[in-house]
Amino acid sequence: MGLDLSAYSVRTDLALEAHDLASAGGMTIPGIERTQYEEEGVRVSVIDITSQEGSQAVGKLPGHYITLDVPALRQKDSDLQDRVATIFAQEFEKFLHKLNIGPKASVLIIGLGNWNVTPDALGPMVVENVMVTRHYFELMPDQVSPGYRPVSSVAPGVLGTTGIETSQIVEGIVEQAKPDLVIAIDALASRSLERVNTTIQIADTGIHPGSGIGNKRRGLTLDTLGVPVIAIGVPTVVYASTIVNNAFDMMHNHFRKQTTNTGHILGLLDNMQEQERLQLVKEVLNPLGHDLLVTPKEIDQFIEDIANMIASGLNAALHEAVDKSNVSAYTH
Amino acid sequence: MGLDLSAYSVRTDLALEAHDLASAGGMTIPGIERTQYEEEGVRVSVIDITSQEGSQAVGKLPGHYITLDVPALRQKDSDLQDRVATIFAQEFEKFLHKLNIGPKASVLIIGLGNWNVTPDALGPMVVENVMVTRHYFELMPDQVSPGYRPVSSVAPGVLGTTGIETSQIVEGIVEQAKPDLVIAIDALASRSLERVNTTIQIADTGIHPGSGIGNKRRGLTLDTLGVPVIAIGVPTVVYASTIVNNAFDMMHNHFRKQTTNTGHILGLLDNMQEQERLQLVKEVLNPLGHDLLVTPKEIDQFIEDIANMIASGLNAALHEAVDKSNVSAYTH
Amino acid sequence: MGLDLSAYSVRTDLALEAHDLASAGGMTIPGIERTQYEEEGVRVSVIDITSQEGSQAVGKLPGHYITLDVPALRQKDSDLQDRVATIFAQEFEKFLHKLNIGPKASVLIIGLGNWNVTPDALGPMVVENVMVTRHYFELMPDQVSPGYRPVSSVAPGVLGTTGIETSQIVEGIVEQAKPDLVIAIDALASRSLERVNTTIQIADTGIHPGSGIGNKRRGLTLDTLGVPVIAIGVPTVVYASTIVNNAFDMMHNHFRKQTTNTGHILGLLDNMQEQERLQLVKEVLNPLGHDLLVTPKEIDQFIEDIANMIASGLNAALHEAVDKSNVSAYTH
Amino acid sequence: MGLDLSAYSVRTDLALEAHDLASAGGMTIPGIERTQYEEEGVRVSVIDITSQEGSQAVGKLPGHYITLDVPALRQKDSDLQDRVATIFAQEFEKFLHKLNIGPKASVLIIGLGNWNVTPDALGPMVVENVMVTRHYFELMPDQVSPGYRPVSSVAPGVLGTTGIETSQIVEGIVEQAKPDLVIAIDALASRSLERVNTTIQIADTGIHPGSGIGNKRRGLTLDTLGVPVIAIGVPTVVYASTIVNNAFDMMHNHFRKQTTNTGHILGLLDNMQEQERLQLVKEVLNPLGHDLLVTPKEIDQFIEDIANMIASGLNAALHEAVDKSNVSAYTH
Repeated sequence: MGLDLSAYSVRTDLALEAHDLASAGGMTIPGIERTQYEEEGVRVSVIDITSQEGSQAVGKLPGHYITLDVPALRQKDSDLQDRVATIFAQEFEKFLHKLNIGPKASVLIIGLGNWNVTPDALGPMVVENVMVTRHYFELMPDQVSPGYRPVSSVAPGVLGTTGIETSQIVEGIVEQAKPDLVIAIDALASRSLERVNTTIQIADTGIHPGSGIGNKRRGLTLDTLGVPVIAIGVPTVVYASTIVNNAFDMMHNHFRKQTTNTGHILGLLDNMQEQERLQLVKEVLNPLGHDLLVTPKEIDQFIEDIANMIASGLNAALHEAVDKSNVSAYTH
Repeated sequence: MGLDLSAYSVRTDLALEAHDLASAGGMTIPGIERTQYEEEGVRVSVIDITSQEGSQAVGKLPGHYITLDVPALRQKDSDLQDRVATIFAQEFEKFLHKLNIGPKASVLIIGLGNWNVTPDALGPMVVENVMVTRHYFELMPDQVSPGYRPVSSVAPGVLGTTGIETSQIVEGIVEQAKPDLVIAIDALASRSLERVNTTIQIADTGIHPGSGIGNKRRGLTLDTLGVPVIAIGVPTVVYASTIVNNAFDMMHNHFRKQTTNTGHILGLLDNMQEQERLQLVKEVLNPLGHDLLVTPKEIDQFIEDIANMIASGLNAALHEAVDKSNVSAYTH
Repeated sequence: MGLDLSAYSVRTDLALEAHDLASAGGMTIPGIERTQYEEEGVRVSVIDITSQEGSQAVGKLPGHYITLDVPALRQKDSDLQDRVATIFAQEFEKFLHKLNIGPKASVLIIGLGNWNVTPDALGPMVVENVMVTRHYFELMPDQVSPGYRPVSSVAPGVLGTTGIETSQIVEGIVEQAKPDLVIAIDALASRSLERVNTTIQIADTGIHPGSGIGNKRRGLTLDTLGVPVIAIGVPTVVYASTIVNNAFDMMHNHFRKQTTNTGHILGLLDNMQEQERLQLVKEVLNPLGHDLLVTPKEIDQFIEDIANMIASGLNAALHEAVDKSNVSAYTH
Repeated sequence: MGLDLSAYSVRTDLALEAHDLASAGGMTIPGIERTQYEEEGVRVSVIDITSQEGSQAVGKLPGHYITLDVPALRQKDSDLQDRVATIFAQEFEKFLHKLNIGPKASVLIIGLGNWNVTPDALGPMVVENVMVTRHYFELMPDQVSPGYRPVSSVAPGVLGTTGIETSQIVEGIVEQAKPDLVIAIDALASRSLERVNTTIQIADTGIHPGSGIGNKRRGLTLDTLGVPVIAIGVPTVVYASTIVNNAFDMMHNHFRKQTTNTGHILGLLDNMQEQERLQLVKEVLNPLGHDLLVTPKEIDQFIEDIANMIASGLNAALHEAVDKSNVSAYTH
C-alpha cells in the first residue's frame, strides 16, 4: 500500500526546492554551499552538494546544481527569452569547463519524454530545434568550418510507446555514437505552481531513476553510460496530488491562524497520519488516479518557448562559432 | 471580489449533474422529468425541464437534455466507440424530429473552442472530421446523390485569438449561409473527474453565456441566431479549483465520519463561510490562478477519439444515405 | 475541354512575373510604372498599374503592387528574417498611408487557405501569430495603452472543408466586426521554382477569383466587402503542370541552341498547338491530375518562417507602439 | 558529375516495377517467379527472385516480395481500408512462417523517416499507432494474457536531424533489446504517379542503402543486424525529376506517333544522350534541385490512413489474440 500511495505524496526533482525545504528557510546545511545572483530579471542559484551528509540532508546526489528562476518567463517576451538563453549558455559553459569537455569534444543530446503529452514534450522539442553537426564531421570532415564541434541529438521516446527502457535505448546509441558527453533534457514535476515553466535546472549528476514526468527505472549517469551526463530539467507540471496536499496544508494553516483555543482541531489535523492523508488525497483524485496533471491553459506555447530558449542556449554554449550576443539566430 | 472569487467556485454545465445535485439523490423536482436506460455499457439519461419552476430548481433553461455516460470510453476500445456513435446518432435523430428538421433541411455545424488548447479543441476537431456537403448542393445540385442534406461546418475560433466575440462571427456566418439548424459543439468543464471524457450531453437549448471552457459573453440560441440550436457538450477538463474544493469537502466528511464527539471541529468547518473558503482555494492556486486545468495525461488521444465518435454520429444522423450500422466508415 | 485543360496551363498570381513576361525583359508598357531598389539582400520592386491599357497588357488589375524578393530566405537565417520583417513593415505602412488608414482605424486580418495542406497553411499561420487587440478595445477601452489599434484576425477555412464560399464567410464577419480595412493573406502558386518561399507580394487590389492555391469563385475586394482590401501573397508551391510545361520549353530551347539546320524540328515543336501541348501535360500528370504540387522537402519549416516574418511585420506596421527595430519580439 | 546527375534519373524501390520494366510487359525472366491474385479490389502480386541471374536482371536482391495494389485506396473508404489491413495481415503472416518466426518470438518495429516531412513520416506514424507490449513481458511477465508476443517499436529519426546514421542507431537498439525479428517501415519514391499511396510492398530482404526517401548509406539487413529484417515500403511521393523525365518520354512518343516521315526529329531525340537529358532535367528543376517532391494536396490524410492500415495489419499478424476480422479495433 505504501507503494501505491507514494504516488500521491509530494516529491521534488529540484535540488533548490529540496534544499530550501530542508534548510527551512535559512539554516546552513553542512556539506552544501548555496549562492545566488540576479541579473535582468533572472535569478541564478548555485547549489553545491559536496558531502554525503549534505546529500542525505536534502535527498539529492552530491554534485553541482544551477537553477535559473525567471518569474516573467510566462509573459511571452522575446527579449527576456533571449537574455535567458544567453545566461543559460554562460552557465552551461561553466559545466563544460568543470567537466573538462574541450571545444572539439563530441556531444550527444538526449531529449527525454513523450511527444504526445504536451508537458512531457520539452525534451523532444529541444532535440528538434538544436543544431546537429556530427554527420558533417563524419561525412566531410574537411569542410566543417572551425568553431563547431560534433553534436548529435536523439529523442528516444518513452517506455510506454517503445516497449524498451529509455536507458537501454540511450545506452545502445551511446555505444554506437561514442560521444564524450551526454546532455539529457527532461520535463519535471514541480511541488509549486510558481515554478511551472519559469525554472530551469542544470546538474552534473545525470538523470536518476524515478525523476521526471514519466517514471524511469534506470538512470542516465556516468556509471551507466560511461561518459559524463549533464541533466537539464524544467518543471512543466504539478501533479494534481500536489495541489490536493497543498489544499490540506492551507486548511491546516488557516485554522491555526484563525482560532485561538482550538487545541482540539489542531490536534486532530496534526494527528492525521501520513497514510490517512494520502488515502484522502487518493480519494479526491479517484477515479482518474495519480497521473492527473495540473497545467496552465497556455501550456503548448510555454513549452515551445522554453524549448527554443534551451536549444538556443545549447547552440551558443556548444559551438564557439555561434555568436553569444544573438543566440536565437541559430534556432527557429 | 465576489466576481473574482466566483471563478474559484463550483459550477456545472451538465443538466444531469445540476439535477442530481438539486434532487440530492432521489427527490422528484416539480417540472422536471428524468428517465434513463442502459444499453451495452452506455447509460442514456433523459432530462426534460418543462417549467420555470424546474428550471430554477436546477439552474438550467427549460428544454430537452440527453446525456450519454460511457465509463469505459477512456479504454480505447474501437468497438465501444462505434456503439456509442450509433446510439448518439439515434438519440440525435430524435432531436431533429422534435424540432421538425426534415431530411432536406440545411445544417451548419459550429465547432467552438481553441485549436491550441488540447482539452478545448473538441469542437474544431469535430468540424474537421464531419462530412461537409453544402457546396455540392450550391455548385452542382443535380449531381448530389439522394439521401444527403446540405451540411456546412465552421470552427470560428475564440475571442482571445480572433478579437471578435464568437457569437458575432457565428451570427455573420448564419446570415450568409442561412441554415435551417445550427449544431454547436463545445468542450465543458466538469464538476467530477469521473465525467471527464466519458459523458456526452445533447440539448436543444443552445449555448449560453459563460458555459464551456472559454468564457462566452453571448450565447448561440434560437433568439440570437433565428434558427434552432442543438448543443453538444463533452466535459474534457476539471478546473483545479474544483479539485481543491473537493479536497475540502473530503476532509470535512473524513472528520465527520472519524470523530464521534468533535462537535467543535465540525462546527468550525461548517462555519467556514463560502467567501472564506473560496479565498482559501484561491490561495492554493496562486500564482497561476483559476485557468489551471486538471487533465489526464492521455488527453490528446481522448479528445481525438470523442471527436471522431461525434463526427461519425452526426454524419449518420444527418444523412439518410449514411449506413447506421457502420457509422465510422464515413469519418477518418 | 478548354476549361478542363486550363488547369494544366501556366498562370501567375504575381504582378511582377506577369509584367516581366509581358515586357519581355525590358520594354516599357504604357500605363505601368516599375521601379526597384535593393537593401541588404532584399530586392523591393514596385509596380504601379495606372491605366486600363497597362492592366490589359499584364492581365492584372490597376493598382499598387510591391514585391519583396529574398533569394536567401530559404537558408534559415533569423537575422535576415528580421530584416525582411522590418522592410515589410516599412513598405506595408506606405500602403496604409496611401489608403488613408489612420493609426486608430480598425483592421481585420483574414488568413486564407487550408490548415491541413502545408503549402496552403500560410494564411492561417499568420493569423495564429499576429497580435490581436480588438477585444481589449471592446471590453476595456480605458485600459488599452496608447499606440495600439483594434486588430482582429480570422482563418475562415476553405470551401472544401466548410461547405461555404470563403468570401461569404468573410462578408458575414466584416458585417459584424465592421473593420476599416481588411488584410488578406494567401499562399500562391508560382510560375517559377525560384520564387517559392522567397517572394512576398503586397497589393492594394484585394483578392480576386481564381487566385491562390484553392480556387476562389468570388473575391475579397473593396467592391464585395465595402472596405479597402490589402492582399499579401507568397508563392509557396509550383503546380506539377508548370514543371512539365517548363520541361517542354527547355527541350524546345535545347534543340534551338544545339542544332543549326533543324528547321524541321523547330517547326514541329513550334507548331505543336496549345491544346495539343496541354493535352500532353495532362497525360504526364495522369492519374493524379492537376492538383499535384511540387514542394521542397523542407516546406513545413519554410512556411512557418515566412508566416512569422509576415506576422512580425504586420504587428510593427499596424501598431505605433511596436518597436520597429525589434519586430520579432512581439511574435513567437 | 555522373554522381550529381544520378539524382535526376529514374529509379524504383519497388521490385514489381523493376520486374515489369525489365520484362517489358510479359517476357519471363529466368530466376524470377511472378504470380498474382485479386480479391475485393486488392491485387496481390508475388515476386520471388531465386537466382543471381534474376537478381541482376531486375536490379533487386534475391528474396520474396509481395505487393498490394489498391487503386481505390485514395478514396477514403474505411471499409476498403479494413479489407486491405486484413489482407496485409494474412500476407504478412506468411512471411513470419517462411522465416520461422514463432508466435512468441519478439519483434522490434522500426519506423524509418522524418516526422517533419509529411510524405516521409509514414514509418514514424506506424510506430505511433502499433501495439507495444514488450515492457509488459519485461515488467510483469506473469500478467500478460496469452496470444500476445513482445513487440517494441522505435522511430530512430533521420541523419539530418540526429547527426547519427540511422543504421547505427538501430544497431545500438537491437543490441540492447535483442529482438528475434526486425520489421522496418519506410516511405518510398515511386516512378509512377499511379502508385503513390496505393501500393504496399513487403519484402524479406531488409532495407538497402540508397532506398527510401532519405538517402541511407548503410542498410538494415540480416547481415548488419544479425536477425531477419522484413521491410514494408509504400511509395508516397514522386520526385519532380521523374515527372520531368516522363514529360520528355511523352513528347518523344507524341512525335513518334504523330509524324510519319520525321526521321530527323526522332533521330535527334533518340540521340540525345543520357547525360544530356539528365542535364536538361536538372536545368528544369533549378534552383531548388533534386529534393523537390511531387505530392497530391491531400498527402497528410493519405499518409495517416495508410499508417493506420499498416499498424492494424501488423497488430493482427503479430498477435494471435488480435481478432483478424476486426483489425482496426486495436488501433486508433
